[in-house]
Amino acid sequence: MKRVLVTGGSGWIGRHVAAQLLEKGFDVHATYRNTVIPHPPQVCHWHRVDLLDEAEVTSLIRQVQPTHLIHLAWEAVPPQCYHSITNYHWVHASMALIRRFVEHGGTDIVVAGSCAEYEWENGYLDEQRTPLSVQTPYALCKNTLHTWLQSYAEHVGLRVCWARIFHLYGPHESGKRFISSMITSLLKKEEVLCTHGRQSRDFLYIEDVASALVCLVMSKLDGAVNVGSGRPVPLRLIASIIQAQMGSRELIHWGAIPLPADEPLFVGASIERLQKEAYWKPGYTLQAGLTETIAWWRQHVKD
Amino acid sequence: MKRVLVTGGSGWIGRHVAAQLLEKGFDVHATYRNTVIPHPPQVCHWHRVDLLDEAEVTSLIRQVQPTHLIHLAWEAVPPQCYHSITNYHWVHASMALIRRFVEHGGTDIVVAGSCAEYEWENGYLDEQRTPLSVQTPYALCKNTLHTWLQSYAEHVGLRVCWARIFHLYGPHESGKRFISSMITSLLKKEEVLCTHGRQSRDFLYIEDVASALVCLVMSKLDGAVNVGSGRPVPLRLIASIIQAQMGSRELIHWGAIPLPADEPLFVGASIERLQKEAYWKPGYTLQAGLTETIAWWRQHVKD
Repeated sequence: MKRVLVTGGSGWIGRHVAAQLLEKGFDVHATYRNTVIPHPPQVCHWHRVDLLDEAEVTSLIRQVQPTHLIHLAWEAVPPQCYHSITNYHWVHASMALIRRFVEHGGTDIVVAGSCAEYEWENGYLDEQRTPLSVQTPYALCKNTLHTWLQSYAEHVGLRVCWARIFHLYGPHESGKRFISSMITSLLKKEEVLCTHGRQSRDFLYIEDVASALVCLVMSKLDGAVNVGSGRPVPLRLIASIIQAQMGSRELIHWGAIPLPADEPLFVGASIERLQKEAYWKPGYTLQAGLTETIAWWRQHVKD
Repeated sequence: MKRVLVTGGSGWIGRHVAAQLLEKGFDVHATYRNTVIPHPPQVCHWHRVDLLDEAEVTSLIRQVQPTHLIHLAWEAVPPQCYHSITNYHWVHASMALIRRFVEHGGTDIVVAGSCAEYEWENGYLDEQRTPLSVQTPYALCKNTLHTWLQSYAEHVGLRVCWARIFHLYGPHESGKRFISSMITSLLKKEEVLCTHGRQSRDFLYIEDVASALVCLVMSKLDGAVNVGSGRPVPLRLIASIIQAQMGSRELIHWGAIPLPADEPLFVGASIERLQKEAYWKPGYTLQAGLTETIAWWRQHVKD
């Protein structure tokens, strides 16, 4: 049985990844730091570890000896994550983790990156063609780690898949991103101030993000692979689906806040690799994912 | 008094750097690993540390609390250093060291890189203009660390000077590079097989390399700074100076081994920054440096 270690296992993506890996028959070990584990899916081995502490990491890897690693842990809640000092710390902590993993026999790694590693431009962002960004500490640090890791992997014969996750949504979101903030505002009957809303973005339901990562860890792919729907939609279309299920059209004020001048109008994920090389398919349409998300928020928003 | 930590303090460059810093009035702490310290210059504080062990590094920095850091330690003996796995380890170990240094109040860093970080081309290699290489693990890892460090330094308000050291020579060299191997072969009356020898390279005497690094740590400069003579000379000219002092012309066979096709004929260091911004001047001419080196080898080569 393959033994997989999921860092950030109690996080938004991590809990779904751990659950799906268990269903696939992996021996799943997952790390968490501060939180009490919210709902241990089934028989997952939980490890409370500060991954920024090299001694704790060394002892974890020695104990678990995973063959596979899904490295999700990082400071990852926007917008503060883009400029946080901890980005710099996560670079060397991740290198140390990966080195220990390799030294104890690990062979396959999936690392979570994101679309924020690219220089954004109008169109479909592509793993090979789109230039990478060094504009924010987040982008610079993720790209620095990726450069080091790709070369290290070749040197030691490690398989590395670097997943660039685009926009995601679903239950348990922190509530400040577009979809969650719209749903929660409508539930609370609060006004929603929006940009013009004509910009298209690529959204994927959280469980589909997790299934893509699980698909990648089970594949033989290496290199960067975008994780997205491949079907960017205008924010206004997303809002109209939410409104159709929730009503309250009059609370949404389009054009109330400006879209930053440097934000392109159309950003999509080129997902050829994910579809044609990893054979991944999503389980949810946008409509179905939004239905799940609205249902979850109805249970969790206090009036 | 400024407290400076020199990593690799017992190394070829490090011992000269430590000695010169003491002369300038620094409180000097230096690390070494395996070797017994060969000749502690004066009252330098020696610390035996494995810099690849984060716990040892943390304890070192907590104890010394240096304001200045000259980071020389790395796997640095060509040619094996260019492809060694330890390059990858030195990246995260250096990041951890620098992070601890900053957390304990450190403000100024000089890191030793080299001309092997550049894509070699015919001409003077320039800090701003010459493209950087990712061809060897050494180049990729040094450039990865540099990218991370430059951004981290801006973020935390650290001054970083990245010294790209060109070719160097002098006493205590490992004996396999051009100048040392020529001198030792002539001393032993052995045949010397050479390339055609018309390629020009930029050589600097070891004490001048050290004085440049000391100059940089005392300056207010930041960014990459080449450390070289700025006066590349053909290898045949170097050989003729050595021969004039040692005789044995008939032992040298030019054209006996091929120069790799991708090696440019003329590689020099553009040293405008070092001269005009750091006001550094060399103490040795090529002639004088070679005289010192020959004299040292006469003492140390067993017939």
